[in-house]
Amino acid sequence: MQTAPASFRIEKATVNDVPLILQFIRELAEYEKLLDRVTTNENRVRDTLFGAEPAAHALLAYENNQPVGFAIYFFNYSTFVGRPGLYLEDLFVSPEARGKGFGRELLAHLARIAVERGCGRIEWAVLDWNEPAKGFYKRLGAITMDDWTVFRLMDQALADLASK
Amino acid sequence: MQTAPASFRIEKATVNDVPLILQFIRELAEYEKLLDRVTTNENRVRDTLFGAEPAAHALLAYENNQPVGFAIYFFNYSTFVGRPGLYLEDLFVSPEARGKGFGRELLAHLARIAVERGCGRIEWAVLDWNEPAKGFYKRLGAITMDDWTVFRLMDQALADLASK
Repeated sequence: MQTAPASFRIEKATVNDVPLILQFIRELAEYEKLLDRVTTNENRVRDTLFGAEPAAHALLAYENNQPVGFAIYFFNYSTFVGRPGLYLEDLFVSPEARGKGFGRELLAHLARIAVERGCGRIEWAVLDWNEPAKGFYKRLGAITMDDWTVFRLMDQALADLASK
Repeated sequence: MQTAPASFRIEKATVNDVPLILQFIRELAEYEKLLDRVTTNENRVRDTLFGAEPAAHALLAYENNQPVGFAIYFFNYSTFVGRPGLYLEDLFVSPEARGKGFGRELLAHLARIAVERGCGRIEWAVLDWNEPAKGFYKRLGAITMDDWTVFRLMDQALADLASK
């Protein structure tokens, strides 16, 4: 694993970065073969990340002042430990910028945010076929939550239950 | 599936409910055979759920004015749809109060909160061996996120990465 060069930096995104964030969301979805699931747009990104009550936070990574990746995260909660956790919703490094340690730098930055905020853990979900990502995360010491199944209620099933 | 009787009600928890919430957290953990993972206490429950910036929200369910269950939830975020989601961290109905539709009533209450808040989905995690729960959720129309693996970075691995 290489160490990121001095020309690499990470910054909090601002409302001016909305088009760039949307572009990275779409590039990540394309890589994950899930582009058909992307229904967000600039207005939603602006309202949800930069409105009065942000639902999540965005970081941008730059190499030589060119954007090369991003991360979107929010804080979740563990009742068992009674502490918040950091949930990493999106992590993406542009294909042409990979192999330089930028993904690790983004994760290390998030780890520092988590520790400063008193979080006991960072969690995220990886597509099962994404072996390069899974290997990378395991080498960092991440464990997999193999005993749990995530359920999701959405669309008509959610509307039906809400209307009872 | 029975309909909950009129003697059943759901209320937002208040800071006076901290001991009861902690008791339910421990009862749920015991049912999940994870009681050894519970390190929270009344102070942490109070600070994280009823402090200046609550990390999560608690609901309590009552039958004939006796507490029979609880739910803890927070709002997460989907970048693909650009909307918040509702994440159900804990859902528990006391063993002696099961089979009366109270779990479904709690979930329906959460579904209404999700819809009012503009959430596209409710998500939660279930232990793989908990077949009764899995069957119950599937009958409500919930789907399982089978293509994803959840990773977690914690303890020394988190501290190591943060100190880079």
